[in-house]
Amino acid sequence: MPDTTIPHDALQRFIARCFIACGMPKDDAATAAGLMAQADLIGQDGHGVFRLPMYIKRIRAGGMNMTPQFRRIEDRAATALIDGDNGLGHLVMHHATELAMEKAATTGVAWVGARHSNHAGPASLYATMPLKKDMIGLYIAVGSANHLPPWGGTEMLLSTNPIAVAVPSGQNVPIVLDMATTVAAYGKVKTAAQRGETMPEGWMIDREGNPLTDPKRASEGFLLPIGGPKGYGLALIFGILAGTLNGAAFGRDVVDFNADSTSLTNTGHMIIALDIKAFADPDQFKAGIDRIWDQLKSSPRLPGVSDIRLPGERLASVTAQRLANGIPLPAALLAQLAGMAADLGVDPL
Amino acid sequence: MPDTTIPHDALQRFIARCFIACGMPKDDAATAAGLMAQADLIGQDGHGVFRLPMYIKRIRAGGMNMTPQFRRIEDRAATALIDGDNGLGHLVMHHATELAMEKAATTGVAWVGARHSNHAGPASLYATMPLKKDMIGLYIAVGSANHLPPWGGTEMLLSTNPIAVAVPSGQNVPIVLDMATTVAAYGKVKTAAQRGETMPEGWMIDREGNPLTDPKRASEGFLLPIGGPKGYGLALIFGILAGTLNGAAFGRDVVDFNADSTSLTNTGHMIIALDIKAFADPDQFKAGIDRIWDQLKSSPRLPGVSDIRLPGERLASVTAQRLANGIPLPAALLAQLAGMAADLGVDPL
Repeated sequence: MPDTTIPHDALQRFIARCFIACGMPKDDAATAAGLMAQADLIGQDGHGVFRLPMYIKRIRAGGMNMTPQFRRIEDRAATALIDGDNGLGHLVMHHATELAMEKAATTGVAWVGARHSNHAGPASLYATMPLKKDMIGLYIAVGSANHLPPWGGTEMLLSTNPIAVAVPSGQNVPIVLDMATTVAAYGKVKTAAQRGETMPEGWMIDREGNPLTDPKRASEGFLLPIGGPKGYGLALIFGILAGTLNGAAFGRDVVDFNADSTSLTNTGHMIIALDIKAFADPDQFKAGIDRIWDQLKSSPRLPGVSDIRLPGERLASVTAQRLANGIPLPAALLAQLAGMAADLGVDPL
Repeated sequence: MPDTTIPHDALQRFIARCFIACGMPKDDAATAAGLMAQADLIGQDGHGVFRLPMYIKRIRAGGMNMTPQFRRIEDRAATALIDGDNGLGHLVMHHATELAMEKAATTGVAWVGARHSNHAGPASLYATMPLKKDMIGLYIAVGSANHLPPWGGTEMLLSTNPIAVAVPSGQNVPIVLDMATTVAAYGKVKTAAQRGETMPEGWMIDREGNPLTDPKRASEGFLLPIGGPKGYGLALIFGILAGTLNGAAFGRDVVDFNADSTSLTNTGHMIIALDIKAFADPDQFKAGIDRIWDQLKSSPRLPGVSDIRLPGERLASVTAQRLANGIPLPAALLAQLAGMAADLGVDPL
């Protein structure tokens, strides 16, 4: 059955009315729906409306606060620690990123951390927010389930803790790196299982350390970090910076958001906003990025490679295509969303 | 011929007198020699006194400024951009890190960039400096020679651009991640060539994209980034943050420090100092790090793995061992240093 394409604004309005039906204030619902629909728009299919049924399940089970009061637990000129009061992660991090941008406009850079938050969708949503102010954004999160043992271990104590960094260009689209610290994201394993595909060696190993290539056996093994011990080191450091430093969950304290709908997840994230004007004239900086862009793009390629890609190119082309033609949603997801809408008593998509 | 072990303080004094003989002011020579000898002390053999002959060659060729005047080109409450006036990288980054710590003590976090610097030794030297103030350090540099093409390309436009992050613990040694964005550092390839060893697949590819395992053929190929396109993305972003943002060299502008002793390298680096007190009580934070440490250490292991290691453990054990027993230097290096000392008219090691 082919995917149905849904216009971006229709998707956003649908998400908003689901949240409003759950008791979320109208303005917050508009912000949250905007960010979630943006995740679908930019091609992060596993982090957009796909997650809505899980969020709604958690909300109805009492596992998320629809009227959180964000508190600044710590506050300095260039830093803050926000308590998200168990609100939706998107709202917590939207608030944290706005605050970081406000501080960085004066101090040059700001680092805002959050605790008592929840899953916030794809990392690039927050890293790209500062671009509109000629700022660079850097976002790190503790993932919402542990999928990674320490290097040499078999207990999944670490998440795929992602990082996203966004940098503006002049003539080109922004450079947006958004990556997990594992070779493959867990979503890619799930997709391979759904499609009946085999995984390449290097994605996962089993409990004996042998390559695991059957995605249906994913629960018998672990994701592998990029660069072996290096990716493990990055996942550890990112977990400390986004989790431990903020008094948020890390290690054994991480609650599997997918399996448990009621326990406080105490999800931690952090955002850095860096004002380019504190280092250079923004136009000159962007011209420098364009020069690097051109060098990479025009450089010679390996046999069989048709194009050198920069991080953010695919995001931009998918966004343009989906703005024009709508967002493709699989029939199974549409049916799930229709059932959820009926339960909530809201108009379907 | 077995290595000769040299006491740490003797090595430091030797490096200082070489720099003084080249016209470096005494205080600067003490600082630079302290950092260089520290590189050997912590086990970064490829980044300590091993590099001194190359530095001295550049200094005598007029390629480095012995009496640099550091200027703050940009200055905000939490940021600064330093012009290193073509001084030794160690002195530029020591200055930049002190400034970042001073600012972060008030603002909570500070980000200081540098341009017109030079090779500064191992990344962990600067990331660990803030630890003494209960601060976290994060250092990124543009490497001093390009060894990495963009993903899918064959022109080496990127360096192995390293990152180091240092985090204090309570009962344990600090967590210190210090890594290049390639699977193997170029120094490991050189070492394998010297020893006549074969490299594992995954370290390098040749110009056709095939695995390159003979380190003697290293000039015919390229290093591979960690996680394929992910490591390429990290090397690119790190180059932008440490290079382009600071008006320092990146891409085709990078001068190969090893091959060219006179051209201005315009090396770029950046340091973030983050005051833990802006987020948490430092003792509570360190207790949290100890809990994660214990979880990782006591977790079950893959068959054949004797220990789960944390980044920074090897650094700490090598340091303790070398402080007690001295720093082992190969005979060939000692001979080279003796020749250099004679040229400079200073006492040998």
